[in-house]
Amino acid sequence: MPRINDHYLKLQAGYLFPEIGRRVKAFAAANPQTSGGIIKLGIGDVTEPLAPVVVEAMHLAIDELSKRETFRGYCDEQGYDFLRHAIAEHDFRARGCDIADDEVFVSDGSKCDTGNILDILAPGRENVIALTDPVYPVYVDTNVMGGHTGPRKDSGEYEGLVYLPMTAENQFCPPLPARKVDVIYLCFPNNPTGAVLPREELAKWVDYARANDALILFDAAYCAFITDPALSRSIYELPGARDVAIEFRSFSKTAGFTGTRCAYTVVPKSVTGLNASGEKVQLHKLWNRRHTTKFNGVAYVVQRAAEAVYSSEGQKQVQATIDFYMENARIIRQSLTALGMKVFGGEHAPYVWLQTPAGLKSWAFFDKLLNECHVVGTPGSGFGASGEGYFRISAFNSRANVEEAMQRMRDRLKI
Amino acid sequence: MPRINDHYLKLQAGYLFPEIGRRVKAFAAANPQTSGGIIKLGIGDVTEPLAPVVVEAMHLAIDELSKRETFRGYCDEQGYDFLRHAIAEHDFRARGCDIADDEVFVSDGSKCDTGNILDILAPGRENVIALTDPVYPVYVDTNVMGGHTGPRKDSGEYEGLVYLPMTAENQFCPPLPARKVDVIYLCFPNNPTGAVLPREELAKWVDYARANDALILFDAAYCAFITDPALSRSIYELPGARDVAIEFRSFSKTAGFTGTRCAYTVVPKSVTGLNASGEKVQLHKLWNRRHTTKFNGVAYVVQRAAEAVYSSEGQKQVQATIDFYMENARIIRQSLTALGMKVFGGEHAPYVWLQTPAGLKSWAFFDKLLNECHVVGTPGSGFGASGEGYFRISAFNSRANVEEAMQRMRDRLKI
Repeated sequence: MPRINDHYLKLQAGYLFPEIGRRVKAFAAANPQTSGGIIKLGIGDVTEPLAPVVVEAMHLAIDELSKRETFRGYCDEQGYDFLRHAIAEHDFRARGCDIADDEVFVSDGSKCDTGNILDILAPGRENVIALTDPVYPVYVDTNVMGGHTGPRKDSGEYEGLVYLPMTAENQFCPPLPARKVDVIYLCFPNNPTGAVLPREELAKWVDYARANDALILFDAAYCAFITDPALSRSIYELPGARDVAIEFRSFSKTAGFTGTRCAYTVVPKSVTGLNASGEKVQLHKLWNRRHTTKFNGVAYVVQRAAEAVYSSEGQKQVQATIDFYMENARIIRQSLTALGMKVFGGEHAPYVWLQTPAGLKSWAFFDKLLNECHVVGTPGSGFGASGEGYFRISAFNSRANVEEAMQRMRDRLKI
Repeated sequence: MPRINDHYLKLQAGYLFPEIGRRVKAFAAANPQTSGGIIKLGIGDVTEPLAPVVVEAMHLAIDELSKRETFRGYCDEQGYDFLRHAIAEHDFRARGCDIADDEVFVSDGSKCDTGNILDILAPGRENVIALTDPVYPVYVDTNVMGGHTGPRKDSGEYEGLVYLPMTAENQFCPPLPARKVDVIYLCFPNNPTGAVLPREELAKWVDYARANDALILFDAAYCAFITDPALSRSIYELPGARDVAIEFRSFSKTAGFTGTRCAYTVVPKSVTGLNASGEKVQLHKLWNRRHTTKFNGVAYVVQRAAEAVYSSEGQKQVQATIDFYMENARIIRQSLTALGMKVFGGEHAPYVWLQTPAGLKSWAFFDKLLNECHVVGTPGSGFGASGEGYFRISAFNSRANVEEAMQRMRDRLKI
């Protein structure tokens, strides 16, 4: 019988969102008459429809696929030139970042990419991996699956990973690691805390990576929510970053593609790793090999949809939706502050991160909010030990639902 | 600096299809006046448009995404219930196979799935892996990348893999392995040889797997091309298979989805592997964990497109296109036979596999066909050492192009 990958058995049984789903389902079953229904501000899923230009582009692309003369089969796995070019030009070169079209790899999701990137790095525990705490659970879980950690400790942390706490005490700026690390995950605007790094804080990380030959895996899935032009949207806005950083981007939150699936990863040709003989190898070459061997490209219809986001009309339309979500975030921040809660984030990110009132544990506050207000959020502890005592509220919902949720918290939450 | 995955450096530099693309591009550049153009019967990519019901379903789905009330964001990573149910019901239960809806995992491609499945098996060289020769290169390359092989030998084979030759001498029925193996890749109808296994031959493999506790990775991406009802489309039509086999299926060739991207993998709950303590673990559980952690589901529009394939109108429409390709295959078989060539396959698969005339090496025949006839095929040796002296011609093209290619071979090929 084949031997399985035992590293999977180290994983915690319930992934955060399935556990939330389970509790919500159980609550709904026990309370079928819940007045006004349950309002979900938990999982970070968009609620607004696709932009009209995106819809139009998809209809056109489908019509092309319906005729022999314009039919499209396999594309290059890395994506169509029209999309790679639009991305490199608009998201990078227009902002002064030196990124070439062929450094952009189009994919079906940043979740996939941030997991799959580990394929090209050494198996086992040769690299020391650092990540923030709290953190997007996928970074941790994929490292566990890949055998890059030891077993899970009682604290919920995995042996061998270097955790960088992000809490109110350090203004959600993770400290540089105390020991030398090889790979660092950074996600800004941050999921789950909604924090952003000032430019000089981000520069510290680029400098650290250059000085210590470390690789930064920069997840910028939420960069479209940045409202202050002084903040960097891409890590490549920092000098020297293209030698040490891979950046992940997604259309999921930018353009409401969570059910449409398109993302991309930037691997500059100047980023290198070491082979067993100590020679430098371009990570671009390895990722290209991985991407072409284990992936088959994104659907033509979806790539045309993504391209439409970059049209001038598309930019206006997606910006209007982002502004809408950010107004939700403002309402949430204001309402919770008025309730006497301590809130963070929500200014350059669609997530508000609150300190749970009365010293409640994160899951206790989750249950309380669900039971008393029929509102679902995400317990901070689900994102890591340092998330304990915090709670994430997502701004992705209709205005009516956000206002109703805030009203219920004002009226019914017993703190 | 991070250490890279050195296993990638064992890989042969040029993947088969990029090398074909390079040679065709060079030929076209040197011969800009090529009369009538180059006809590509190389890569197995479909050419006919999407079925009308599929097109209609996609338009409808996009309209849903354009309105707030019917918008869809994230779906369960495993796929929408409507599609998992349609697949299990139509492709399996209707044919007497005991497969439950939740044993079906919808994905964006069989190439991805056949590569990613290795994630849940032991890293390194704990499992002995068998595959046919010739073989779809992705099986080999992903095993190399995963460190499941030794270095590449001069023969092009990788140390540690067990190769099962499929040639005219054994009627393209691979022999049972001489040594005990843990994992076996089987692809029938076969890419590249176009061969199918008679039911009793397939039964031998199921029996072998049961007797030797081996896992069969069964790639049935071409099963829709089977014309003889006595042949098995699914390995689960064989008694006992659901304890030992994982099956991969794709809409790429069945419904022309190479540019639309939808596939699925069946992992029965009864298939197990061993953990380090020698206990059995459900592979279903591990794959579910992998799929939900490292994948984000297939686009809603695409899942609706796949669902439409199962409507009665959809079945008729995709069958008509398959019949069209199979008539191409018949023409190719007949034409090449009339030229005195020895041909195989093409009766239950869209690929014709010919023995190169005059003992030519596969790449020599490739160059000859390109130079003399401006026709592109695929050298058999690109699929493995036992493919040397063979050549694959794909039936995926317009009738006019297939007829023209055959005419050119009759008129111009100097054998």
